Amino acid sequence: MRTSRLEAFSDGVLAIIITIMVLELKVPEGHQLADLLRKTGVGLSTYLLSFVYVGIYWNNHHHMFHLVRRVSGGVLWANLALLFCLSLFPFTTAWMDESRFERTPVVVYGANLLGAGVAYLVLQTVIIRQQGPESPLQQAVGTDFKGKVSPGFYLAGTLSALAIDRSGHVGVGIALACFVGVAIMWIVPDRRIDRVVRQYETPD
Amino acid sequence: MRTSRLEAFSDGVLAIIITIMVLELKVPEGHQLADLLRKTGVGLSTYLLSFVYVGIYWNNHHHMFHLVRRVSGGVLWANLALLFCLSLFPFTTAWMDESRFERTPVVVYGANLLGAGVAYLVLQTVIIRQQGPESPLQQAVGTDFKGKVSPGFYLAGTLSALAIDRSGHVGVGIALACFVGVAIMWIVPDRRIDRVVRQYETPD
Amino acid sequence: MRTSRLEAFSDGVLAIIITIMVLELKVPEGHQLADLLRKTGVGLSTYLLSFVYVGIYWNNHHHMFHLVRRVSGGVLWANLALLFCLSLFPFTTAWMDESRFERTPVVVYGANLLGAGVAYLVLQTVIIRQQGPESPLQQAVGTDFKGKVSPGFYLAGTLSALAIDRSGHVGVGIALACFVGVAIMWIVPDRRIDRVVRQYETPD
Amino acid sequence: MRTSRLEAFSDGVLAIIITIMVLELKVPEGHQLADLLRKTGVGLSTYLLSFVYVGIYWNNHHHMFHLVRRVSGGVLWANLALLFCLSLFPFTTAWMDESRFERTPVVVYGANLLGAGVAYLVLQTVIIRQQGPESPLQQAVGTDFKGKVSPGFYLAGTLSALAIDRSGHVGVGIALACFVGVAIMWIVPDRRIDRVVRQYETPD
Repeated sequence: MRTSRLEAFSDGVLAIIITIMVLELKVPEGHQLADLLRKTGVGLSTYLLSFVYVGIYWNNHHHMFHLVRRVSGGVLWANLALLFCLSLFPFTTAWMDESRFERTPVVVYGANLLGAGVAYLVLQTVIIRQQGPESPLQQAVGTDFKGKVSPGFYLAGTLSALAIDRSGHVGVGIALACFVGVAIMWIVPDRRIDRVVRQYETPD
Repeated sequence: MRTSRLEAFSDGVLAIIITIMVLELKVPEGHQLADLLRKTGVGLSTYLLSFVYVGIYWNNHHHMFHLVRRVSGGVLWANLALLFCLSLFPFTTAWMDESRFERTPVVVYGANLLGAGVAYLVLQTVIIRQQGPESPLQQAVGTDFKGKVSPGFYLAGTLSALAIDRSGHVGVGIALACFVGVAIMWIVPDRRIDRVVRQYETPD
Repeated sequence: MRTSRLEAFSDGVLAIIITIMVLELKVPEGHQLADLLRKTGVGLSTYLLSFVYVGIYWNNHHHMFHLVRRVSGGVLWANLALLFCLSLFPFTTAWMDESRFERTPVVVYGANLLGAGVAYLVLQTVIIRQQGPESPLQQAVGTDFKGKVSPGFYLAGTLSALAIDRSGHVGVGIALACFVGVAIMWIVPDRRIDRVVRQYETPD
Repeated sequence: MRTSRLEAFSDGVLAIIITIMVLELKVPEGHQLADLLRKTGVGLSTYLLSFVYVGIYWNNHHHMFHLVRRVSGGVLWANLALLFCLSLFPFTTAWMDESRFERTPVVVYGANLLGAGVAYLVLQTVIIRQQGPESPLQQAVGTDFKGKVSPGFYLAGTLSALAIDRSGHVGVGIALACFVGVAIMWIVPDRRIDRVVRQYETPD
């Protein structure tokens, strides 16, 4: 089975997820800039964060399927599992936003990021296994530094929000820093990171 | 007429249906895990069930149109009838969820599953008839064990919810078990089922 | 400029319009069949009518662009005008439904149908003019019996709702009969209608 | 990397943005024409304005990517930045509409137009730089009269609403005239404008 319809369907779902989140931005009741900032300021920043994350997933999905010729049933279902995790972003983003970064909603958002990250790795593994030895995806991904580090950061952030300074804002702040940091790591042009990674991996 | 635009349109509609359902997940008012579970726990599980069903239909639709070269007016309308039935999932899922599995909403959800299953069989039949003898779809579908058994289970589940233990939860429980069971039957890799079906069909 | 992206964009917009209308179906508060019928019965039938209309437009759009190779700026804007008219269906359908077929909302729905019908004819004319003499679309469309009769029925229905039996239901009933009738005329396989039209047009 | 999936994804997002705005049109409570005009009249006109703007962006995006063969990571992110700006239209349109053209919401709408215009120019610049000397996009765009004039008008309109007649309607009126005027400038067939521009640019 060719990948074209799987790509088209995934593009459709990702396009809807990325756009539907804007429906969560509530129009302020007043008509002053202060009303906008009070009501929508937080929402706009969480929307931006989730928009960037869905953009990263679309970007990576796009790259990944460049190296895939045929898809099996396992790939279809692993892909749907990834889309399911991503489809929860509008919900978890809205809760985190509406709670103004309360501890539990931030933990749930982190769990959602973690779930999507793991689902992505599972999809990648299913494809590589299907392609067998000399899998082109395996060669392109290499050690997959970013892909493996990201879930670690999501987990660290989520655990920080759970365990550190439960009555204050420190743990939540660390969590948000992790989530924003990973997003920046993915946006920054690969070349620079690649050079770092290469130096790190070949120290001889 | 080629199938590419019919596939693209169907992909679009299915992508929207599968994603729109997440808008039914209501953000809890409190910010504790208990609030989330109380408010969204049921919704998340029904969302997952309907997500899987739309995924199954997309998957099967995808496979079916691999074997179709040209579409007639009849195929276009049979396809639209299927999409109409599937487009009601967000509504029937929301009602079942909101009612916490009351009898009537579960019956209506079952009727929706049944309608979609029948619409799929009609679409398949229209295509096979259009392809004439030696229809490649007919050969691929074969006896279509799963496709024919599924409506039976939807009907059995719906009737259970209607007739069994009208004041209690037994009938509804049987119905939900049927609906979840059929979904699992479709997800489980075909090979295993195929072997069972083959043994069942060729007992000599 | 090729037509592929115009078709893909139109497919996307039509897929969203056709699916978004289901969001207007309000989940009933009670959990009995009577609650469903009282709350959603009308909504389901108006949703079905508008679903069929968008399906008809998609179907015709699909056929029309089979005969188009290149698109000019004029075609792009005529196509957007058609999409704009169609995008108002969820709104006019919701108002007609919510008002339980009051006179003004039915008139507005009819005006929407009329606007879409005229926009479609304009798009067709712009394409034919661009293709010049021996336009393949012109040859395929021929006298375009259905396309020219439909706006007449929309107008007749709208005027009936406006003028006939202003305090009762007769005018609105005629309007709805016109709107449903035109939809059925488009669904019924072309062959049968074509035969009638051919007999009507070549009486010698 | 080829452009097909970037185009498909952008088409999807733009199709959703352009259609989602209709969800902001609130169904009037009464059933008279006066109710419709009072409740939805403003909304319909702002919806039309934003619909036309998204249509213009889709149109230009479509033309631009006709001249692009391969996309780099920078182009992907510049494209996502443009989509982000455009995805805010449903929100800023709804606020401007709901406030009945109060000063601050009009300024925010103008800032949104300005942001999208600048993001478009950035995307164009990133592509031209990637294509190197003899960039086909550079040659097609030429001096890009419209593209460079538009942000000027958005800025002028926004500043008018901010600074002129702060207690009255004059500044806001100038702003709206600018926003509508730029939209008309883009819709009017290029030939006429082109002739004007050419006369203006080659006065010898």
